[in-house]
Amino acid sequence: MNIIVIGGSAAGPKAAARARRINPKAEITIIQKEPHLSMASCGYPYYVGGFFDDRNQLISTPTGVVRDPAFFMKAKGITALTQTEATEIDTKNQVVTATSLEDGSVRQFPYDRLIIATGARPKMPPIPGITLEGITTLQSLKDADYLRAIRDQRSIRKAVVVGGGLIGVETAEALHLAGIEVVIVEMLPHILSFLNPQLASLVEQHLRSKGADVILDNGVQEFLGDSNKLRAVKLSNGTELSAELAVIAVGVQPNVDLARRAGIRIGDLGGIVVDQYMKTSIKNVFAVGDCIEVHNRLTGKPVLAPYGDLANLQGRVAGEHAATETAKANQPLPSFPGTVQTGICKVFDFIAGSTGLTFDNAKAAGFNPICVVASGPDKPGFMKGLPLISYMVADRDSRRILGFQCVGTGDVSKQVAQAAVAIQGGLTVDDMTNLDLPYAPPFSLAIDNGIGVSHVLQNKMNNLFTGICAEELYNRVQAQEELFILDVRGPDEFEQMRLGIGERLIPLGALRNRLSELPQDKNSEIITFCKISLRGYEAARILQGEGYTNIKVLEGGILAWPYCREK
Amino acid sequence: MNIIVIGGSAAGPKAAARARRINPKAEITIIQKEPHLSMASCGYPYYVGGFFDDRNQLISTPTGVVRDPAFFMKAKGITALTQTEATEIDTKNQVVTATSLEDGSVRQFPYDRLIIATGARPKMPPIPGITLEGITTLQSLKDADYLRAIRDQRSIRKAVVVGGGLIGVETAEALHLAGIEVVIVEMLPHILSFLNPQLASLVEQHLRSKGADVILDNGVQEFLGDSNKLRAVKLSNGTELSAELAVIAVGVQPNVDLARRAGIRIGDLGGIVVDQYMKTSIKNVFAVGDCIEVHNRLTGKPVLAPYGDLANLQGRVAGEHAATETAKANQPLPSFPGTVQTGICKVFDFIAGSTGLTFDNAKAAGFNPICVVASGPDKPGFMKGLPLISYMVADRDSRRILGFQCVGTGDVSKQVAQAAVAIQGGLTVDDMTNLDLPYAPPFSLAIDNGIGVSHVLQNKMNNLFTGICAEELYNRVQAQEELFILDVRGPDEFEQMRLGIGERLIPLGALRNRLSELPQDKNSEIITFCKISLRGYEAARILQGEGYTNIKVLEGGILAWPYCREK
Ligand SMILES: Cc1cc2nc3c(=O)[nH]c(=O)nc-3n(C[C@H](O)[C@H](O)[C@H](O)COP(=O)(O)OP(=O)(O)OC[C@H]3O[C@@H](n4cnc5c(N)ncnc54)[C@H](O)[C@@H]3O)c2cc1C
Ligand SMILES: Cc1cc2nc3c(=O)[nH]c(=O)nc-3n(C[C@H](O)[C@H](O)[C@H](O)COP(=O)(O)OP(=O)(O)OC[C@H]3O[C@@H](n4cnc5c(N)ncnc54)[C@H](O)[C@@H]3O)c2cc1C
Ligand SMILES: CC(C)(COP(=O)(O)OP(=O)(O)OC[C@H]1O[C@@H](n2cnc3c(N)ncnc32)[C@H](O)[C@@H]1OP(=O)(O)O)[C@@H](O)C(=O)NCCC(=O)NCCS
Ligand SMILES: CC(C)(COP(=O)(O)OP(=O)(O)OC[C@H]1O[C@@H](n2cnc3c(N)ncnc32)[C@H](O)[C@@H]1OP(=O)(O)O)[C@@H](O)C(=O)NCCC(=O)NCCS
Ligand SMILES: [Ca+2]
Ligand SMILES: [Ca+2]
Repeated sequence: MNIIVIGGSAAGPKAAARARRINPKAEITIIQKEPHLSMASCGYPYYVGGFFDDRNQLISTPTGVVRDPAFFMKAKGITALTQTEATEIDTKNQVVTATSLEDGSVRQFPYDRLIIATGARPKMPPIPGITLEGITTLQSLKDADYLRAIRDQRSIRKAVVVGGGLIGVETAEALHLAGIEVVIVEMLPHILSFLNPQLASLVEQHLRSKGADVILDNGVQEFLGDSNKLRAVKLSNGTELSAELAVIAVGVQPNVDLARRAGIRIGDLGGIVVDQYMKTSIKNVFAVGDCIEVHNRLTGKPVLAPYGDLANLQGRVAGEHAATETAKANQPLPSFPGTVQTGICKVFDFIAGSTGLTFDNAKAAGFNPICVVASGPDKPGFMKGLPLISYMVADRDSRRILGFQCVGTGDVSKQVAQAAVAIQGGLTVDDMTNLDLPYAPPFSLAIDNGIGVSHVLQNKMNNLFTGICAEELYNRVQAQEELFILDVRGPDEFEQMRLGIGERLIPLGALRNRLSELPQDKNSEIITFCKISLRGYEAARILQGEGYTNIKVLEGGILAWPYCREK
Repeated sequence: MNIIVIGGSAAGPKAAARARRINPKAEITIIQKEPHLSMASCGYPYYVGGFFDDRNQLISTPTGVVRDPAFFMKAKGITALTQTEATEIDTKNQVVTATSLEDGSVRQFPYDRLIIATGARPKMPPIPGITLEGITTLQSLKDADYLRAIRDQRSIRKAVVVGGGLIGVETAEALHLAGIEVVIVEMLPHILSFLNPQLASLVEQHLRSKGADVILDNGVQEFLGDSNKLRAVKLSNGTELSAELAVIAVGVQPNVDLARRAGIRIGDLGGIVVDQYMKTSIKNVFAVGDCIEVHNRLTGKPVLAPYGDLANLQGRVAGEHAATETAKANQPLPSFPGTVQTGICKVFDFIAGSTGLTFDNAKAAGFNPICVVASGPDKPGFMKGLPLISYMVADRDSRRILGFQCVGTGDVSKQVAQAAVAIQGGLTVDDMTNLDLPYAPPFSLAIDNGIGVSHVLQNKMNNLFTGICAEELYNRVQAQEELFILDVRGPDEFEQMRLGIGERLIPLGALRNRLSELPQDKNSEIITFCKISLRGYEAARILQGEGYTNIKVLEGGILAWPYCREK
């Protein structure tokens, strides 16, 4: 059996390696355009940022062996041809044509099974000046080398990152750590567009507090140069940012030209269409990784999900199918169920992670969603707990959890991981309220933060808790609406930090005795809060017990407030 | 409505606090024997170990307010009576009798709903000398004060911890950090008896490497004293360990005397029997926390599960039921589904965590289990990944994951949390192989460690991988069996570290060319391994491809080897 794999970075080599283990006798060949194989592209920002210095770590096994063609042959029994571009797929005769980029020679590769893993390429918006020297992407190892050299030479002072997605934000941090002044320019109202806007604002605040500027709602109009070298970036609003370096990170698009020419079905989003076995529309042809459209497990719709983890998991499934002559009975067929679009990103001391759907996505997908923002520490104070601000979305009808996001300096990674499993396991909010998790003080609160968020959302679903989100409150304050806003923290806390939006202070412990200071009309709207809105919620329950009918809690409290504070 | 809560540490106050929020008008009274309320007992070892110095943090809100009776009254509208012992429950007339431990006065408390949260007490084995001065438990704040004073005064040099459970191990670390020489004495063959023995051995090795000694398979025969002060601990095997301090940590037993006298049903394990609503056998009486038996979600059998997280979750459910006059339609009744016995424990730089069943427990519960040990780093090498050694158990028939354990210096907490959710979500091994988790290099491998373990177990279930566990190999080596053991790492790795059990070295990359060095009988048993047995597995697949029929992989490789190595 002859297996050909086109693409040698993540999904392709994974498929080839799995195919080899499934079928020790197959002939397996990887055709790879670039000079390297098995690049850990996700590590590029950390190499550029100086988290490590040995570039070979990006293309090595955990024990330090470079994954070059010799390694693939000796350790895996796989032929890997680098600097070789597949130029044609003849799906009728099952032959791939490839050209050597070294000597121009052309070869034919017959296949029994073909795996397409051609990945994605960065979008390059047609902005005047985009070909100037000093403008790059961070997609290939060559790009990483280029940016790392800039770090090592300390040759540049100012840079602009165009696009505030995962890669843009990671690149901005890397350049900042390289001693470069960085500005992120984002066309949308927020960076990290998969995040709920409130959480994205908190990340933006953190970036700015670290000295990386963020310009929102603004596109690049032109790159300005001197003698073909970038000098400044001109924004749509006219601002000119002087910059010797610009990194374009406005997203990627699937590499499907080859597949399209071969008559393989391409979806509306521009990726190759596959089923759960990673089979394309054409017999014996599989596709995996960034070049495909992925089934969204929650909406049932295809999405682009260019993530390194999924590329590997898909590769493993495709490799098994491609290498299997006849499937075994009594054994589930390997299949890839799809994505819930789980991702995470380090942003200096902050971490931002997301899984599942936002409220808007859930609504668009036909759910009847409800969501909440809640804050709290990840561990007890005595173990130096750090803050987390979370956002949870559920379906009112089925009560299933549909989405979870979390930002902060605490253990975001664990929160997002456990919520991702909960979503993929079909758990309801009520299931989550009672999870048995690993608790000890060095690792979590007695009621783990994620469980705590589910308690708040359960309360909201059961009408024990009525929230108001920061944006609504802010807009109403801006509109100078007459509002009764109640901060229920202690006076010392109020002295240290406060919103300054016209709130009164009545500490929770005094509230029962100071009811006379509240509007006496029991239908008055009163908005309560505290640092995280735990006491805010308790205050609301007290007032509701007193007959007040229109009490709202500022969701997430001061910790989740994404606007300027008085103090 | 009158709600009485007996017990004022974790489950009791949680139930009371939730009851208050559900029903702002109820009268709620906590009856608490000890002088304090809401003690974070799980924090005691960290206070003793000097992770923090302000003891009030153990009994305070996150903002530093001590949770005393005044706090409970002002902030929660709850009457909390400390140093008050409930001595009788009259379930017919719905009255609790309590005695003040300060002045001996006796009061009657009529109730509409009663919540029993009397917790557990440390088992005190009837060992001669156990009342000597210098022998203590670590269960109450008083105990914590006592041990912390020892730390602060640096008055003691040697201590013995009797019992190697979670609390014993945490206490041993705390005393060691206090500058005291510590020995843990455990009657069973291993500490942390919920762990698979191999993983427990690795924890024992780590403890010893840190200078805390561990003596296994040995009980205490007698505590020896001088003028009523502890001088030494005499073990069953005759050894005398000199010690000025002994901490007894051989487990806890539910406090159920009061409930038993009231005619409330007690189970075979000695805990109060409750249903999923936390209702006892008697109307209007609920019970929560360490005093109850908990439904094991996997076996369906009751277990004792004295964990702080569960105490809180149960309290929340009971508080809601107790405070609810009539349940709302269209809203799921709050219920507590039970435990999968998820726990975690810091052991110096190691972390040990567990969720679900071990192979033996699963077998005893009627499953058809299969298990595997696998190792690997938690993050890429370039992000300074740290090792994890994991153990996964599944049911062969349903393919459901039944258990997961993990030890190591890496991010054990996340691994156990996500596996715990997977188990509670009913995921199969195959579901786990394709989870979409939050991947970025600072947080995990592209194929997250836990997913990787599920790949190995899936391979084992699908007959791609045949394992041999360290214990079996060790025993067969000890018995001087003729074995062909193949280390497939590189020569430099072999020089740095090796088992020294008669293994040959043929690096994976050379294996295909050096087949002649192997036994030529294709039915020979060959055992392959490497540092983590990833290459060991690949070697096995190569040999199987060559027609060998009896290849086994040493599960978890060198990293999981719990015995002495040559190097
Ligand atoms: C800077 C950066 C950071 C990232 N961080 C993360 C992260 O933190 N988490 C995460 O989940 N994902 C991350 N990703 C995404 C992740 O790297 C990709 O999802 C993954 O690499 C996709 O793998 P792939 O094999 O499908 O495609 P690619 O990695 O794009 O590889 C495709 C390969 O195919 C080759 N090829 C294309 N056409 C041909 C042809 N005709 N003939 C021969 N060869 C061809 C290309 O040369 C390329 O090497 C990051 C990506 C980048 C660039
Ligand atoms: C040192 C230590 C470390 C721990 N670490 C962890 C950990 O890391 N993770 C974890 O999950 N769990 C841990 N635990 C367990 C956790 O603390 C308990 O599960 C939890 O405290 C149980 O709460 P409870 O309210 O049911 O019982 P308890 O905390 O035992 O409280 C019961 C209270 O009831 C009172 N009482 C008893 N009888 C009467 C009566 N007749 N009248 C009035 N009052 C009465 C007692 O005074 C006591 O204060 C640890 C425990 C200890 C001691
Ligand atoms: C490395 C690469 C070539 C895949 O090769 P691979 O041999 O499948 O390597 P992996 O480490 O992923 O997996 C090794 C195998 O060993 C198994 N394994 C891992 N640890 C094991 C252990 N402790 N014991 C036994 N088996 C183990 C795995 O199950 C897997 O086998 P399977 O797929 O047959 O189940 C491919 O993933 C790659 O090129 N990666 C680098 C690029 C990349 O991932 N980029 C995107 C993110 S930055
Ligand atoms: C603290 C204690 C008295 C319980 O009191 P509590 O008021 O329920 O406190 P918690 O912090 O647990 O929960 C507060 C409430 O605020 C809610 N809340 C928490 N964060 C919130 C936020 N950001 N926004 C809105 N509501 C929030 C929770 O949902 C919970 O309400 P609910 O139970 O009605 O859903 C009790 O748990 C206790 O005594 N603990 C200390 C001892 C202990 O736990 N020991 C064992 C482990 S060491
Ligand atoms: Ca992911
Ligand atoms: Ca637990």
